[in-house]
Amino acid sequence: MIYFVFLQAFTLANIAIFIPTVVFMAKELTSRGENYSQWYNDIVIKADLAENSAVRGCMVIKPYGYAIWEKMHDALDKMFKETGHQNAYFPLFIPKSFLSREAEHVEGFAKECAVVTHHRLKVAPDGNGVVVDPDAKLEEELIVRPTSETIIWNTYKNWITSYRDLPILINQWANVVRWEMRTRLFLRTAEFLWQEGHTAHATSAEAVAETEKMVNVYAKFARDFMALPVVVGHKSESERFAGAVDTLCIEAMMQDGKALQAGTSHFLGQNFAKAFDVQFSSKEGTLEYVWATSWGVSTRLMGALIMAHSDDNGLVLPPKLAPIHVVMVPIYKSAEEREAILAKMDQIKAECEKEGLTVKIDDRDNLRPGFKFAEWELKGVPARVAIGPRDLAAGMAEVARRDTLTKQTLPEDGLAAHLKALMDEIQENIYRKALDFRAEHTVKVDTWEEFKEKIEQGYFLLCHWDGTGETEARIQEETKATIRCIPMDSFVCEEEGKCVYSGKPSHRRVIFAKAY
Amino acid sequence: MIYFVFLQAFTLANIAIFIPTVVFMAKELTSRGENYSQWYNDIVIKADLAENSAVRGCMVIKPYGYAIWEKMHDALDKMFKETGHQNAYFPLFIPKSFLSREAEHVEGFAKECAVVTHHRLKVAPDGNGVVVDPDAKLEEELIVRPTSETIIWNTYKNWITSYRDLPILINQWANVVRWEMRTRLFLRTAEFLWQEGHTAHATSAEAVAETEKMVNVYAKFARDFMALPVVVGHKSESERFAGAVDTLCIEAMMQDGKALQAGTSHFLGQNFAKAFDVQFSSKEGTLEYVWATSWGVSTRLMGALIMAHSDDNGLVLPPKLAPIHVVMVPIYKSAEEREAILAKMDQIKAECEKEGLTVKIDDRDNLRPGFKFAEWELKGVPARVAIGPRDLAAGMAEVARRDTLTKQTLPEDGLAAHLKALMDEIQENIYRKALDFRAEHTVKVDTWEEFKEKIEQGYFLLCHWDGTGETEARIQEETKATIRCIPMDSFVCEEEGKCVYSGKPSHRRVIFAKAY
Repeated sequence: MIYFVFLQAFTLANIAIFIPTVVFMAKELTSRGENYSQWYNDIVIKADLAENSAVRGCMVIKPYGYAIWEKMHDALDKMFKETGHQNAYFPLFIPKSFLSREAEHVEGFAKECAVVTHHRLKVAPDGNGVVVDPDAKLEEELIVRPTSETIIWNTYKNWITSYRDLPILINQWANVVRWEMRTRLFLRTAEFLWQEGHTAHATSAEAVAETEKMVNVYAKFARDFMALPVVVGHKSESERFAGAVDTLCIEAMMQDGKALQAGTSHFLGQNFAKAFDVQFSSKEGTLEYVWATSWGVSTRLMGALIMAHSDDNGLVLPPKLAPIHVVMVPIYKSAEEREAILAKMDQIKAECEKEGLTVKIDDRDNLRPGFKFAEWELKGVPARVAIGPRDLAAGMAEVARRDTLTKQTLPEDGLAAHLKALMDEIQENIYRKALDFRAEHTVKVDTWEEFKEKIEQGYFLLCHWDGTGETEARIQEETKATIRCIPMDSFVCEEEGKCVYSGKPSHRRVIFAKAY
Repeated sequence: MIYFVFLQAFTLANIAIFIPTVVFMAKELTSRGENYSQWYNDIVIKADLAENSAVRGCMVIKPYGYAIWEKMHDALDKMFKETGHQNAYFPLFIPKSFLSREAEHVEGFAKECAVVTHHRLKVAPDGNGVVVDPDAKLEEELIVRPTSETIIWNTYKNWITSYRDLPILINQWANVVRWEMRTRLFLRTAEFLWQEGHTAHATSAEAVAETEKMVNVYAKFARDFMALPVVVGHKSESERFAGAVDTLCIEAMMQDGKALQAGTSHFLGQNFAKAFDVQFSSKEGTLEYVWATSWGVSTRLMGALIMAHSDDNGLVLPPKLAPIHVVMVPIYKSAEEREAILAKMDQIKAECEKEGLTVKIDDRDNLRPGFKFAEWELKGVPARVAIGPRDLAAGMAEVARRDTLTKQTLPEDGLAAHLKALMDEIQENIYRKALDFRAEHTVKVDTWEEFKEKIEQGYFLLCHWDGTGETEARIQEETKATIRCIPMDSFVCEEEGKCVYSGKPSHRRVIFAKAY
């Protein structure tokens, strides 16, 4: 600790703008207290995660943001394969008539979709630029997929004749388009990346089991990789997926107390099988409609990740999704010092890589250490190692944790093993912090007065509800709160009571919250 | 060998339709000699790789085909990252006006593109289905990306101000759409999956070096993973990418002697930087336009893979891209035998997995071994292991190689290590076979008579060409042959001679062939 104080003094004396730089960088980021929404946008932009493109509502996912998404992709893909699913790819386009086959589905998606009407451009009559060629009008318009149930069930029709063809357990990684009017980077964009599982089963029970299995895969992924505690539950009828019999979801709490739906898993019953006439001959020789599920998570998870853990200094990444685990910043005056410190860092880096850590040595020579510290803090790298000439001589290194913003001076001997263990500790700590935050911001509410008060303060409200869409709609109208889910956890929620709004009898509590 | 004969007899006696099934299955596949084009389609469909969808020209990539593409993806992605590239994601849509910015680019892509003109559907006036809502017409039409140079360079404009921002080395994995009139599964589809690298550099030399580096990455991938020998060369002016200064390519020979362009790498000069006004201040303080490259391979590689190696029994996969390395088929009469053999197979499978092999035990009990043999042959699994009761008793197993269709009876002890080594042998053998085939079907041709004769027989023709587009066009008109590339290999090609068509002087040979 004495050593640390000394290093700071040394730094201050020799690299003049060290402290001012940090202050300057930190100031660029709006604080959560000041403007939560702007704080989120600032992090997305300044941590180089994504930006708006020239196309309305479509984002560019920048390399650093995409690297996090790739980590999510790889972890989820492994979990899907471990649960028996295979990947496949279906067309980007859906014939317009397919959408209309399932009545609720078309109602849900027709209002916000990109419609392809022509297949050619031609030189403009005035020779200036190009125009749509009216002779190249499509006979039937094509919709850019907002989700793929219709095109996939039209395909499954040809794949399924007997119970021996079932189950079909397929996942697709794809881009989809929903023409949202108000968009926000990652949270709601016209185009987004996602995965959509589409499974076909011989029995209702099997499809229901699959629906539950996959929502639990999502919950496990959220907990183990995103360090994000989620509530697993059923959606109320009004919040169900268009065409589903039942929608299960995971709901996470953000730092403003609002809920974010992070993944959904739908039991589709026989709706799509009937719409596309997909029947199979059962073991007993009868002809039956196939039972279906679909489930998906998207780049929206990036938004959840950012909002759940980050602080006023920037992004805080759980190590399991961090593209860089450890950043090393050399502190030097002379070229000799630089060379000696970088050589030592190369050695530590090699040791860390043996432990499975990804390490970046920030050897840029046109930037001050303080600037680098702030930049990597902003980017949420879990641990930072700084070594100056005196550290080098003493065989020590300064290790800073992004999650707690604390520092420790440690012997370089055994540093790789320490950092490896530190990653687990940070992962656990971030999760614990989010769990505690949620616990502090979840209350049982039994009066309408308290409901109105607490909902404004940013809470998950565990309330009795009379089960009617009418009450649900009125509550939303008066408070903007919606039923996030009817939690599966019967221990907490199953009890007799009275609806917080109507006073009618209720058998279980549900979660109301404002939501993204 | 004696043992093997005995096993066959045993099989014949006890599983009546063993041989007939094989014959039946093999007959389903059109042979190469009979109809090469139909043979290709048959393999794609019957090996469950892909199928046509309800949307014209768009394919469904089925799980087995997609698993091969995933192997390609993973290997290429690793190579891109090892050469310093990062992944990112840009919008699916390109504003119409962007396409017009680069004159040759719009000329190349405007004629075959999907145009989004509206963003909403509404219930049809007659209440029957949905129609495009005329009130939801876009101010500017959006093109579904046929390639992303324009949207990416419009983005790079905001990322680049100084030489310190360069190089930018980005790759994107994405779907693209080109409204091709005649489509074929994998080879030419309206929508296809690909990767597109887009790099930005401070100097022309650096961009040229990148263009060459990436075409060599493709050549190495083709050789090491696809077991596919390719010729690396320059395209002639008429075959260049729309907007490129120079296009490098890899060209592979298919079993009908036709060429397939398997990947391209473009030096774009400053064309896109000028079209989108992307300038940077150099080290010397001057303002310069940025130099660009782009490079891509697509699901077309699947077509190349299939056509290069497969035979009249079906797909032949190089082990490095095979989703399943070894399939095990138990041969039994009684439930006891089945159980004992499957237990042994589980054990061998575990040993194989330790060697890094992917193994499938085909324990379906409603199918004959012969049917299974033919099915896995059709699907190109590199090795098959069959064990019957007598093998089990003797501690032996029958190993069949897909590439040579030969069988060997081997002790089960050490089998995993043998199979591991066999994979390398098969990979090498498939490559060698393709290389020999190409050597046998490549000739130096110096007379126009011989040119016309050999081009009909399916050869790569190494000819002198006078370097004019006129001669090139005439040759194509008369023979359908095109210049596949001007090979980089100066040893073979640089020599003085006379154009095979015009008789004018020429300084090097180029490759003419018919092409996919």
